[in-house]
Amino acid sequence: MAVYTHLGAEDLAALIAHYDVGTLVSAKGIAEGVSNSNWLIETDRARYILTMYERRIELDDLPFFLGLLDHLSAAGCPVPRTIHDREGRGWRMLDGKAIALIEFLPGVSVDHPTAQQAHAVGMALGQLHIASASYRGSRANDLRPRDWQALFDRCGADLARIDPELAGLTARHMPDLLDRWPQGLPETVIHADLFPDNVLMLGDRVGGLIDFYFACRDFAAYDVAVTHAAWAFDPTGAHYREEIGRALIAGYERVRPLSEEERAALPLLARGAAMRFVATRAFDWLDTPDDALVTRKDPMDFARRVQFYAEAGMAPFDLQGRSGN
Amino acid sequence: MAVYTHLGAEDLAALIAHYDVGTLVSAKGIAEGVSNSNWLIETDRARYILTMYERRIELDDLPFFLGLLDHLSAAGCPVPRTIHDREGRGWRMLDGKAIALIEFLPGVSVDHPTAQQAHAVGMALGQLHIASASYRGSRANDLRPRDWQALFDRCGADLARIDPELAGLTARHMPDLLDRWPQGLPETVIHADLFPDNVLMLGDRVGGLIDFYFACRDFAAYDVAVTHAAWAFDPTGAHYREEIGRALIAGYERVRPLSEEERAALPLLARGAAMRFVATRAFDWLDTPDDALVTRKDPMDFARRVQFYAEAGMAPFDLQGRSGN
Repeated sequence: MAVYTHLGAEDLAALIAHYDVGTLVSAKGIAEGVSNSNWLIETDRARYILTMYERRIELDDLPFFLGLLDHLSAAGCPVPRTIHDREGRGWRMLDGKAIALIEFLPGVSVDHPTAQQAHAVGMALGQLHIASASYRGSRANDLRPRDWQALFDRCGADLARIDPELAGLTARHMPDLLDRWPQGLPETVIHADLFPDNVLMLGDRVGGLIDFYFACRDFAAYDVAVTHAAWAFDPTGAHYREEIGRALIAGYERVRPLSEEERAALPLLARGAAMRFVATRAFDWLDTPDDALVTRKDPMDFARRVQFYAEAGMAPFDLQGRSGN
Repeated sequence: MAVYTHLGAEDLAALIAHYDVGTLVSAKGIAEGVSNSNWLIETDRARYILTMYERRIELDDLPFFLGLLDHLSAAGCPVPRTIHDREGRGWRMLDGKAIALIEFLPGVSVDHPTAQQAHAVGMALGQLHIASASYRGSRANDLRPRDWQALFDRCGADLARIDPELAGLTARHMPDLLDRWPQGLPETVIHADLFPDNVLMLGDRVGGLIDFYFACRDFAAYDVAVTHAAWAFDPTGAHYREEIGRALIAGYERVRPLSEEERAALPLLARGAAMRFVATRAFDWLDTPDDALVTRKDPMDFARRVQFYAEAGMAPFDLQGRSGN
């Protein structure tokens, strides 16, 4: 959530000159991105987001991510286009780091979505899943159940330092998630991290889906489950917001109806989606010093969602007999 | 250099509704400000900077700072206007913190100014000093020589932890600065921190002067000295850039000629201006943990400038016999 690299006006102007986007008028470092630096760039023609990838490890996946944006925006999805340089490249190297220029999309992230907004997000997710199915790029999901287990194993006994309930929760649910994780459900390229802060809303309309850096090939229904877990609760996970959950699924099904197999898998997929965030947050929690300036995300917010999904069964996903949205 | 407070779309939209600025379209937290949080806000009409003052201590001075922006922009200086709410207030309280909305100005901060740019900055500083003389607000400079000495006293023997040269430098120069600091030079409201990152350039033109949070009543010539120390060196202070220093002073004098007393005081004022940044950087250096994520500014970059000004005497400030700019 910071800008890790200083780029002065001269650096930025020289960089921008490699693109056919006009001349630099303004540049502001923006507080987005966890491991990359971002600037909101204005030229005399338009605005753009400039991203500098600070970690070498991300470089291999860059063609996948940037190509996906181009594929989805060409298909009419509300995602930012990658701007290509004068030689047609989607990214360039600067001082040993990759940088990319993407389209700026307007919109603001909501904290308390309305049912109308959740419905619009569901529709946008359905549209994304249909469009991304024809994307040729490939990236495996490196956060599947065995990966969560590996993260918990690395936390070990320290899990109790976060919360005394946490070890019991993983012991209770991880065996189910590992043994009964679905196989053979329809796959596509999924966003895998579609939290409200990755959706730019223009009122009730979706203005943009952003931050595709967890995108990978996996079950479409798992992405529905992730999005459900991310949107349909108060932030602490203590209260399920039924009207939001229903509107999200109804919006999704208006574009891409779920098969019976997908629907039947949703309770387990949603329990797993919640557990995925427990795993990464628990690991990051222990990995971040107590006095660091970075705000740690509480793993218990998603532990409560794991518990909710385990107890609720089909109820959150069974829209039959309801009027829908 | 971060956004310390989360404001969601709903918070921002509710806030914006108190102003006659249109409806919210986009909001990005920006990586500016040391002790406050800033957002670049776009409405359907224009763009603005929203600042949240995170520290209570700043609140008392807020009327001075915001009124100064209004006074200067009314006088034609390139500074952002304060946007007043529907009840005419220049700031509002939100969750116990003051927030203000100011005009967005385009432009980018340069790392390596040209002589033309330095000349334009000198002219803008002269214009500011003339306009601010009629500002009725009042704020004393709380970073004068005795305050630098107090900061060094608090650093004590730890100064040597920063650099073995530092204690000798302060012992050599602080007595002069304390005993011989000028009296009776013309006063006005000064910016007091006009580094390149506080000037938004549009090519060779000054698009905006920003970040007035050190502004106070003091000698106009001291502000010239601060700006000279901030612009006319390479970042480490090892090399004086004569053409930049001369262009800055020439630009200033085109708008506001220096009196003979002011010119004669410049070598000491500039040595003091450099020492002021040694003092605050040394104190902040020792006050910041070694492993903090914040980048510490090296006090030695300005210690080298102190040494330069002590040795150079009138040479950097004596433009006679030169063609000027």
